[in-house]
Amino acid sequence: MKYFTGVSVLAIERFAGVIVPIDTEPAIVVPELEEEKVKSLSPFKNIMKYSDAEGPESLVKSVLKELHLTRGKLGIEDFLPYKFSKMLNRAAPRAELEEASNILTELRIIKTPDELELMRKAGEIIAKGIDAGVETTRAGATELEVGFEIERKIKQSGGDSVPFCIVLRGENAALPHGFSSKAEIRKGDTVIMDVVATYEGYFADLTKTMFVGSASAIQHEVYDSVLRAQKKAIESVKPGTRASEIDKAARDVIKDAGYGERFIHRTGHGLGLEVHEEPSITGTCTTVLRPGMTFTVEPGIYLSQKFGVRIEDNIAVTDKGCETIGACDKSMLIV
Amino acid sequence: MKYFTGVSVLAIERFAGVIVPIDTEPAIVVPELEEEKVKSLSPFKNIMKYSDAEGPESLVKSVLKELHLTRGKLGIEDFLPYKFSKMLNRAAPRAELEEASNILTELRIIKTPDELELMRKAGEIIAKGIDAGVETTRAGATELEVGFEIERKIKQSGGDSVPFCIVLRGENAALPHGFSSKAEIRKGDTVIMDVVATYEGYFADLTKTMFVGSASAIQHEVYDSVLRAQKKAIESVKPGTRASEIDKAARDVIKDAGYGERFIHRTGHGLGLEVHEEPSITGTCTTVLRPGMTFTVEPGIYLSQKFGVRIEDNIAVTDKGCETIGACDKSMLIV
Repeated sequence: MKYFTGVSVLAIERFAGVIVPIDTEPAIVVPELEEEKVKSLSPFKNIMKYSDAEGPESLVKSVLKELHLTRGKLGIEDFLPYKFSKMLNRAAPRAELEEASNILTELRIIKTPDELELMRKAGEIIAKGIDAGVETTRAGATELEVGFEIERKIKQSGGDSVPFCIVLRGENAALPHGFSSKAEIRKGDTVIMDVVATYEGYFADLTKTMFVGSASAIQHEVYDSVLRAQKKAIESVKPGTRASEIDKAARDVIKDAGYGERFIHRTGHGLGLEVHEEPSITGTCTTVLRPGMTFTVEPGIYLSQKFGVRIEDNIAVTDKGCETIGACDKSMLIV
Repeated sequence: MKYFTGVSVLAIERFAGVIVPIDTEPAIVVPELEEEKVKSLSPFKNIMKYSDAEGPESLVKSVLKELHLTRGKLGIEDFLPYKFSKMLNRAAPRAELEEASNILTELRIIKTPDELELMRKAGEIIAKGIDAGVETTRAGATELEVGFEIERKIKQSGGDSVPFCIVLRGENAALPHGFSSKAEIRKGDTVIMDVVATYEGYFADLTKTMFVGSASAIQHEVYDSVLRAQKKAIESVKPGTRASEIDKAARDVIKDAGYGERFIHRTGHGLGLEVHEEPSITGTCTTVLRPGMTFTVEPGIYLSQKFGVRIEDNIAVTDKGCETIGACDKSMLIV
């Protein structure tokens, strides 16, 4: 709905939807209490509301009739709640519902320049948040405290939401998706900050790893390996490359450094209106890159019970190669 | 899933479910990467996993066969994603799917003593957060700054999540669901803090209204009217009362005070594993209260462009009357 209309409407308790005919303007059906918001934010004119007393069924029925969509196939998003699929069955008993999320995936996988601009802005906002986190990081501060400063800065900088923000110290940083706790940062710790935030609904997702007080030879070595892997992976991004080749580029560097077994997740994931979209940057994803695709590149090495390092940028495929649309400073940082 | 097993598994990208036969132990089907978590947190033994390569269909098919559930009616939750309903159709082509959320609603509407205890704890944690917000509230502080102190305190006090936290000053407080901004609190402002947080998955939802520097006669009058309305509403809570009578009790006081038109939302909503559950405390809800039901009581008065007042507690119906399971101090507070 956000993709087609520019407006997000939560459609869990109450039905809300866009009906997109092949040959005419779309129709938007929303509950009464969302009408004003949708009218003010959407460029489309055909916006219809239903009251809680009426329910959506008779309105949907008349809209489908009007648009000559009562027979043939109605494509629906795969995750449409079951109760709404039954409502559509009753509203158009001769139409056949078919899962059609693949059509949307294909549209959404290529970002327009406007979408890229929103993603760049989301990335800038996260980078500011992470800078604030870096300033707060010192022996004695807790993971949660540093996380709060990151969230605070992001919201003050115009971020809509911070759905994910973890700060992990020492052995906690050896878990790719641990949760921030009251654990105090200590001298000699590795600290990973992994932050997801949105701007106008579009996601950025950045990770920075840094060190406190000092870094051991092994911390230096692991950081350097991850950074080289990330660089190689990004260098491999261009139209025509398969997603799996990016994963391989990162994985080969880490394998050569002797940490192949410690790189325990995919190299990245698509990014856009959702935090996980297509393409998936894994060893098995055969998607061929095209200009406008956007994804994270985030290799990592995790030494159980000791520490972990992950470095994550957001990348867009361009006509000739690629462009970084979101990043933090990646030089080895000891504070 | 959380209600039956004690474990939350996100089931949007990958299927996860509990299959509950009428006469034997339930079976739990989860994606591989969730298996360890579910095994460690759930008391049930019959936990089965599928890999991403296999997908869930053949496992679900064999589990349904084993449990003799391949014919007759399979009740499903109304919001099950459409794609999973099709998967069930393929796994059990002779079974008929039927929306059965009403069965769960009926089970969940009555809380056990253990559930009440978790809700009390969630309420205590929010009350601490709001206390921290009160301490931060002063002329010159921004809505967002106060909100951060509330969230920080809640997370430090053991809250799992803070899905909703708004701090609204002055005319912003005239919008029941405005969003916190960088607006600075000023002398003479009304400040509303409305906070939702969870503890072990259970929700509390509290609202406090306070005043900065001084309060005018009308601020005193409006606060007093809302407080009296809330008190009357809570006094009316006992087994046998209809939900609509609680709404009426609050509405009558506010109407008598001359602000009937300015009380622009329902008096409350059920609360539990979700922030909005049954019963709904509205003028039309005919649900008859029974011991163990839990809901918010949160009347409000909103004077457009000026200020608003809302006071919200969490209430449980007991054998004889009711009990407050979450509350802030409600005496008129000017800081």
